Amino acid sequence: MKKIAIGQAGGPTAVLNESLVGFLEQIDQEVTGILQGFQGLVEGRFIDMGPSVRNRARASRNVSGAWLGAGRYTMSETDMARAVENLKVAQIDTLVFIGGNGTMWTLQALSKMASRMNVDLQVIGIPKTVDNDLAETDHAPGFGSAARYVAHATRDMSKDLEAMQNFEQVRIIETMGRNVGWLAAASGLLKVHENEGPHFICLPEQKHDAVGLVEGIRVAIKEYGFASVVVSEGVKLAGGTAVAKTVNGREVLGGISEQLAALVEAELGVVARADILGMNQRASQLACSDQDRMEAYQAGKKAAELVGECISDVMVMFRRAAGAKYVYALDTVGLDQVVAGGERALPEWFQKAPEAYYDWLRPLIGDGSRASSVEGTIGANSASACHHPKIGGISRNLEK
Amino acid sequence: MKKIAIGQAGGPTAVLNESLVGFLEQIDQEVTGILQGFQGLVEGRFIDMGPSVRNRARASRNVSGAWLGAGRYTMSETDMARAVENLKVAQIDTLVFIGGNGTMWTLQALSKMASRMNVDLQVIGIPKTVDNDLAETDHAPGFGSAARYVAHATRDMSKDLEAMQNFEQVRIIETMGRNVGWLAAASGLLKVHENEGPHFICLPEQKHDAVGLVEGIRVAIKEYGFASVVVSEGVKLAGGTAVAKTVNGREVLGGISEQLAALVEAELGVVARADILGMNQRASQLACSDQDRMEAYQAGKKAAELVGECISDVMVMFRRAAGAKYVYALDTVGLDQVVAGGERALPEWFQKAPEAYYDWLRPLIGDGSRASSVEGTIGANSASACHHPKIGGISRNLEK
Repeated sequence: MKKIAIGQAGGPTAVLNESLVGFLEQIDQEVTGILQGFQGLVEGRFIDMGPSVRNRARASRNVSGAWLGAGRYTMSETDMARAVENLKVAQIDTLVFIGGNGTMWTLQALSKMASRMNVDLQVIGIPKTVDNDLAETDHAPGFGSAARYVAHATRDMSKDLEAMQNFEQVRIIETMGRNVGWLAAASGLLKVHENEGPHFICLPEQKHDAVGLVEGIRVAIKEYGFASVVVSEGVKLAGGTAVAKTVNGREVLGGISEQLAALVEAELGVVARADILGMNQRASQLACSDQDRMEAYQAGKKAAELVGECISDVMVMFRRAAGAKYVYALDTVGLDQVVAGGERALPEWFQKAPEAYYDWLRPLIGDGSRASSVEGTIGANSASACHHPKIGGISRNLEK
Repeated sequence: MKKIAIGQAGGPTAVLNESLVGFLEQIDQEVTGILQGFQGLVEGRFIDMGPSVRNRARASRNVSGAWLGAGRYTMSETDMARAVENLKVAQIDTLVFIGGNGTMWTLQALSKMASRMNVDLQVIGIPKTVDNDLAETDHAPGFGSAARYVAHATRDMSKDLEAMQNFEQVRIIETMGRNVGWLAAASGLLKVHENEGPHFICLPEQKHDAVGLVEGIRVAIKEYGFASVVVSEGVKLAGGTAVAKTVNGREVLGGISEQLAALVEAELGVVARADILGMNQRASQLACSDQDRMEAYQAGKKAAELVGECISDVMVMFRRAAGAKYVYALDTVGLDQVVAGGERALPEWFQKAPEAYYDWLRPLIGDGSRASSVEGTIGANSASACHHPKIGGISRNLEK
């Protein structure tokens, strides 16, 4: 009988706990919870998730944050060895973590460390990111809800600004997105008429010329009476640098909106306000996408199914069928491929054709009338007794 | 036959257009729309709201901002005379404005100016404010939705922080509220357990000692592992000043959260992040309270009914019956009383007993299970031909 441990890591999303609940409801074996992410793994902060604990965890499905605790923690080699030792002592032979790029990198490193230490360890990752920067998967749970937040907030705040144009003329809305612009680009989803905001969207994938942007804002004010601008937190203006401060050795961005607002005021003599969307964009339950919520649950459930299979070193992924109708299936991909893929940027074809991006995005948001979401068939799995062979991602074809 | 003009003024709310639509659907006479608030009134920017324009306006009911435009504009005496002259030339004899304290003050001043100029003018105000600082009325449309936003955002962001406590320990959430703390105090509505956020709420009505607050945060971190703090934008720390910059001659607040976060980092050696809720808190349609939406509509409808009555210089108000059940009726109050009342602070009894405040607040938020909202009976009105006698607020008893 396997002994399984599960943890959550990185920044939370609105649906992070759904994946935990999906996993717990599918698994029919003992589960150990790892508190406070990878730090808890290193420090051996484990809890036995018996029936009463599971029930409490299940009540967290529509609660923000991470029921087990998460957070950022960079492991040293010594930490890795300690983590594997902790798992060995607790006789845990399957490690499941819900997280983003950092988590998948760490899982792969832990798997290698376990091999070196001759410890048998099955490793499975469940994707989670509001940035949507995980490679290989079509998208990741958490993103749909955050994108819905950004799209609605931009539409509503732009309408608010339009009404206030005799008092202030420019709003610079700053979204999350250090290196990728999936979230910032989502801000235009609900725009219908040309005069509505956002008038400009600045992605970290693109070069931005401050002079040209300010001139564009000037023209927009002349044309529409106001200008609504969205910038991803990682955007750098040409000749400038991303505004950052260092927190716990990690660079925390934020401030490009204030920099740009000050520039606009100085250059155009208008009133410009910076508005950083902040933590609510990843935490808001009110903005939660039902589709995203369901998929987060399915990802957790899929991971539980994989525990019984001879698969390790994989991440659960979402595969989308080609075509206008949203059809998807859950599958697996090797952690090596995910890690090698790095931070996935918004593809150029989406940057060049926002409408194609919005067609792709709508079913994940879940409140558009143009999209229908259909749960794909999940390929039948042949479970068998196994000894954790290190198999990379097994690609399955969509059966629809 | 009366000729009626309606405008919207001040900062928008999520339900500002509901009041416009409520008015338009009830009125059966010609209506002129005033564009861009009081500035539009001074500049004579009027539009005839014929059937097709009305239909477009009606489609705006769940759109943020102000369909006619709003914004801030301080009138000089010359502006007042010009505004009255514009109304006279357009043969408008009834002026209706949806707004907050500034709007009610301006309406009263315009009414006096009209008297001095021997212009016959009926003046009616429809309340609107996210701050809930209008005197005389139990509450005002716009507040319930903004309070719902603040309550949900604080709960969700606190849960997010709790999960991130190994990376950051303190979040300072800044709400709107220059001089009154209704919104900031609403942040605690959804808190259930002592360890959940918010752990501290700072209102502008109270004195705050920076040293004591930082010490409280230190104890909260020790106790719970993190500290979630809510500050109203107008809060001043003892010995300090409200952080402000001047925009168009008006002081724009914002920055107390950053000031406090920096202080906490310096004093406690922890990571603290400032998070300003920003314009989405007044604009968000996702956070909109259904009760607030309905009441905004009813306030507009009530104003339309008043047009046919011999009542002027009044604001529509909400009267609430005593008792645990939420029963309310729409009534009127003299603009003189509203203006004399000034900015209404959160009463001391609510500051001292938050649970009493939350019981009062729940029916306005509209998603609590403990409250039922019942539309009160609106007293029967006896309409008659009239020549705009200047009658102050007529107090009616609740009929329930």
